[in-house]
Amino acid sequence: MILPNILPLFSGEIAAALAPLPFLATVVAEDSPIILSGVLLTLVVIYLASKFGAEVARRLDFPPVLGELVAGVVVGVSALHLVIFPEGGLSASDSVIMTALQGLNQLTPDALTRIFESQSEVISVLAEIGVIILLFEIGLESDLRQLKEVGIQATVVACVGVAAPFAAGTVGLMMLFHVAAIPAIFAGAALTATSIGITSKVLSELGQLKSKEGQIIVGAAVIDDVLGIIVLAVVASLAKTGEIDVVNVIYLIVSATAFLIGSILLGGVFNKSFVAIVEQLKTRGNIVIPAFIFAFFMAFLGNAIHLEAILGAFAAGLVLDETDARNELDELIKPIADLLVPIFFVTVGARADLGVLNPTVPENRAGLFIATFLIVVAIVGKLITGWAVFGQPGINRVAIGVGMIPRGEVGLVFAGIGSASGILDKPLEVSIIIMVILTTFLAPPFLRVAFGSSINPIPESTTAVETASE
Amino acid sequence: MILPNILPLFSGEIAAALAPLPFLATVVAEDSPIILSGVLLTLVVIYLASKFGAEVARRLDFPPVLGELVAGVVVGVSALHLVIFPEGGLSASDSVIMTALQGLNQLTPDALTRIFESQSEVISVLAEIGVIILLFEIGLESDLRQLKEVGIQATVVACVGVAAPFAAGTVGLMMLFHVAAIPAIFAGAALTATSIGITSKVLSELGQLKSKEGQIIVGAAVIDDVLGIIVLAVVASLAKTGEIDVVNVIYLIVSATAFLIGSILLGGVFNKSFVAIVEQLKTRGNIVIPAFIFAFFMAFLGNAIHLEAILGAFAAGLVLDETDARNELDELIKPIADLLVPIFFVTVGARADLGVLNPTVPENRAGLFIATFLIVVAIVGKLITGWAVFGQPGINRVAIGVGMIPRGEVGLVFAGIGSASGILDKPLEVSIIIMVILTTFLAPPFLRVAFGSSINPIPESTTAVETASE
Repeated sequence: MILPNILPLFSGEIAAALAPLPFLATVVAEDSPIILSGVLLTLVVIYLASKFGAEVARRLDFPPVLGELVAGVVVGVSALHLVIFPEGGLSASDSVIMTALQGLNQLTPDALTRIFESQSEVISVLAEIGVIILLFEIGLESDLRQLKEVGIQATVVACVGVAAPFAAGTVGLMMLFHVAAIPAIFAGAALTATSIGITSKVLSELGQLKSKEGQIIVGAAVIDDVLGIIVLAVVASLAKTGEIDVVNVIYLIVSATAFLIGSILLGGVFNKSFVAIVEQLKTRGNIVIPAFIFAFFMAFLGNAIHLEAILGAFAAGLVLDETDARNELDELIKPIADLLVPIFFVTVGARADLGVLNPTVPENRAGLFIATFLIVVAIVGKLITGWAVFGQPGINRVAIGVGMIPRGEVGLVFAGIGSASGILDKPLEVSIIIMVILTTFLAPPFLRVAFGSSINPIPESTTAVETASE
Repeated sequence: MILPNILPLFSGEIAAALAPLPFLATVVAEDSPIILSGVLLTLVVIYLASKFGAEVARRLDFPPVLGELVAGVVVGVSALHLVIFPEGGLSASDSVIMTALQGLNQLTPDALTRIFESQSEVISVLAEIGVIILLFEIGLESDLRQLKEVGIQATVVACVGVAAPFAAGTVGLMMLFHVAAIPAIFAGAALTATSIGITSKVLSELGQLKSKEGQIIVGAAVIDDVLGIIVLAVVASLAKTGEIDVVNVIYLIVSATAFLIGSILLGGVFNKSFVAIVEQLKTRGNIVIPAFIFAFFMAFLGNAIHLEAILGAFAAGLVLDETDARNELDELIKPIADLLVPIFFVTVGARADLGVLNPTVPENRAGLFIATFLIVVAIVGKLITGWAVFGQPGINRVAIGVGMIPRGEVGLVFAGIGSASGILDKPLEVSIIIMVILTTFLAPPFLRVAFGSSINPIPESTTAVETASE
């Protein structure tokens, strides 16, 4: 390794001496406008799909995020081949967008492959930045002080609702389907987190958001999001080393928890400095840029200590949630999240190859059984949480259990990270995505039955949490 | 070429058959968290630099964009080596960020080079998306109806102010310095566009924005931005083919103008549909996403017909400027622009190797003469525009000429595109950047003298144009 020249203020001589070898730069420079074309066209397709999916879902009374996910499946590897990635043997000629660019620019097959890979890399990083911003926003929306009011009941429901499907899912996959330990743990962990957004939206439509049951459900959903993100950080880190020993697992759980609690405690101090800095700034982006410096740095830190970038972004959101600049920040982050988060949801759908569960192919049968098993565990594992509530005679236990069923963003984050890092094989990844889709589809009608509600419920006013998740 | 399989709804078999060859995907998957770390860390550095630079510039009474550019020079190849790109023989070991990642992750030199290239590609595309959004925003802020009031005087000033430095710059570079035709034309074109933002800010501080002179200057600055973007599209397209013949040049000028006018005319029809669509949408991002679908698609179109992506984005901005949703859109685009535009300005500064003009190196003398020549042409070529005004006895001709001097965003767009595409060699690129910096530094004191203003001017209220450019 040549040590970097930290301050070569007039390093022109060196640059000039090396200049006669610009082969690489020239190749990249020629490709660069076509890579940009590919990225722009892919973003147009992703945005069209996300908006179309979200609006159709909304009109059918389903959460918009579900529509974005399904729209992603339609434009992705399972159907239209508009948004695909160079994984599982797919090449540039499989991509409709790349074929169109090829037609427009008469590229050599080599150049097309290079452009396909660069374009996919850029879209993948944009999706990762999208999920970082999503978790930053969820952190900003999670009011930890509110949790104190919901209290011990929500914590018990959350812990049971994380432990039961995690244990049943992991053990079941290993025992019944002979899945290796790490993917089994990863898939089990993907079953843990209830979607705050989807749950509170349905509760609000049923007029049950302020009921005892509603309060416990939303409180537990916030807590299991936090638990789910810690579990994800631990499991993803385990997967990187490939080894599972008790000391390592304990070390990871402690470090992930310490990272989160540590940043919140340090954040209490940092809060004041953040507001003081923001107040001194007089140029455009005076709130947005410091907030993203903090969020991206925490995400980098989460990644650098071999946990997850999203854990850092979530912690950054929790910290800034406590500042006076919070309301303004919420407003400013919305358009940024609107632009970047759909890239994540659509690409998760687009990467999922539903073909691996095609029931007409005999080899797929194992995958189908796994998907069915995961869905059953996902439903039953949350349903039983209603019976974990104690000291509340007459409470609607079925309603609480059903209310915890819908999975959403965090489940998809597991599927996305698992697939991108190669931990999950295709059938497991697709099973998790189908689990998220089905639990989200089933929860609204189930909840209506559980609460014995009328056909025309009176909607409550929308909450901050709900608005954030749409 | 294998034709793409448009609708392989159950293509699982094919994917399964190809699955045993996931070599490429595995390599990418292993690199992926480190690429993300690199991108996050680079963005943190870019944001810190941009905010620091902008705030210092603001306090010294210079335009913030100048501070961002200079801060980019400081973190880039000329000094700190934090944000560098694999061009001109620079490798991963020259990058401080890559060296830090190397220390954190124990990477092989090959992996580090791959990660450096991928990370640089992602940052480059983010910068390109940043400049697309910048031009989209400038388009949204350019009110074409206002131009009718300023009328013929502004048009004449703009045309002289584009033609004089363009002709003098190009011919001078070819005759005096024996620069090849295409880079000479490109550098000449980079001298054309006055910065609306910087000019109107200084005028506003002097209380001269509503004066006859002020109105002509701002009107001419809007027109020469449009002319400058058309010139850029034509010149960049010439550079792609490498041939200059009169038929081709006329064809390009006509097609760029037709593209711009055509989209504005068609936009008149599209406007109504855009508002109608936005009103139907009920999910988050109902304005932002359709606006960016349009902007990105127009940018793609500009790129696809071998003009420039920014021409399309600018046209999209002009079109949406006419809609009822405009004010809301302006507000929503601001945080997005705040986040992405600084990436462009900082990377333009970071790519500029000031070392190529180090006066202690004898070989750099030619470059220094070129830089001096460009700066003189840039100043004189705009100064004379004051004498193009007719039928206005007693008008302050010096003030108009001086008001047209500051170059800004569009000049930097020329430097950025010229450097990324390899049209401009290092001395020419750096000369253009120094020209932008110097004209912007000099304009405020010159304007004060020209207007004979007091030392403590009364600032007018800020305008929309001014706010947009900060």
